[in-house]
Amino acid sequence: MNERLEKQKAFMLEIDKAKNIFRQTRLSGKGRRENDAEHSWHMALMAFLLAEHANEEVDILRVIKMILIHDLVEIDAGDTYAYDNVGNQTKRVREEAAADRIFGMLPKDQEQELWELWEEFEENETPEALYAHVMDNFQPLTLNDSNGGWDWKKRGVKKSQILKRNEKTADGSKAIWECMELIIDKNVKDGSIILDEDL
Amino acid sequence: MNERLEKQKAFMLEIDKAKNIFRQTRLSGKGRRENDAEHSWHMALMAFLLAEHANEEVDILRVIKMILIHDLVEIDAGDTYAYDNVGNQTKRVREEAAADRIFGMLPKDQEQELWELWEEFEENETPEALYAHVMDNFQPLTLNDSNGGWDWKKRGVKKSQILKRNEKTADGSKAIWECMELIIDKNVKDGSIILDEDL
Repeated sequence: MNERLEKQKAFMLEIDKAKNIFRQTRLSGKGRRENDAEHSWHMALMAFLLAEHANEEVDILRVIKMILIHDLVEIDAGDTYAYDNVGNQTKRVREEAAADRIFGMLPKDQEQELWELWEEFEENETPEALYAHVMDNFQPLTLNDSNGGWDWKKRGVKKSQILKRNEKTADGSKAIWECMELIIDKNVKDGSIILDEDL
Repeated sequence: MNERLEKQKAFMLEIDKAKNIFRQTRLSGKGRRENDAEHSWHMALMAFLLAEHANEEVDILRVIKMILIHDLVEIDAGDTYAYDNVGNQTKRVREEAAADRIFGMLPKDQEQELWELWEEFEENETPEALYAHVMDNFQPLTLNDSNGGWDWKKRGVKKSQILKRNEKTADGSKAIWECMELIIDKNVKDGSIILDEDL
């Protein structure tokens, strides 16, 4: 077997572990917790079907690549819940070490490509990264909403926290953000999301 | 919310069910069975990293779209094991009805796009479809091999069955097929795959 394929095959087997990294979000129907592989598949498929709603025209292949790899670092670093303030302070350091190890299993050019894609996603500045983040926020929001806001209720999530997490969502897609706002407001009304006094 | 986004959102929620369609393949480490969403994510990521090994240059975005949607029909039709002869006789009819219902939830143009992608994948003639099928066969083979050929052993799978299923794999990627042949022969030698007398 050629050397590149050998490395790529070892990487392929390694990333199988993403199927055992569980997120906070539950599957629709109040099912079990969703894992990173499923979440990434769902986001990638949505990205291609919802591309018409991106504010700017995006390179959809780049968006999908970013989405497919965006959570691989969690194989080592674990999933950090969006509203876990302590965990989020150490997240970057843990994830960089993970990227070094995991992307480093690939041939050099591909290691670099994955680093670039991941950095672009994390920096969240390009139209592609902004749009990929819309998917990363819209996907769990719809699942959570379909479960009657169960996860938000259980964790006492506040509207201000959701707004902060989504402060750039409208920069990626105004249309999808409008849809998300309707969902958020419905769940505030239903008592699933806490309305902060200062909002 | 605009009408297209409303339909797309309903579709997104519907396809969440793919996360509960379990395949025969076990995760590496003799883990639980893999589901369709995870399988598709793994294939899509491999497709982009292994594209250099395709016999012909492929439109990788088209390949990935095909992969992301190729198993959606199983939400209604269920997973049919590759070596289940009876199930495979009724597979097409069950899956067409599923495609009608599930793709039909989308706006007309996207319903048609998904039908075209799925038909192209199923016909397995274009370079993109051939290469997507390489991923569909290589991915479970590596998982199964990593588990010491456990699934093959349990089900008494014969080498002739694997060769039949892979009769077009070399048309998609000679390099990957050579790697697969090494894996198959190793598992025949280890007694995990049955060597048919007439081979």
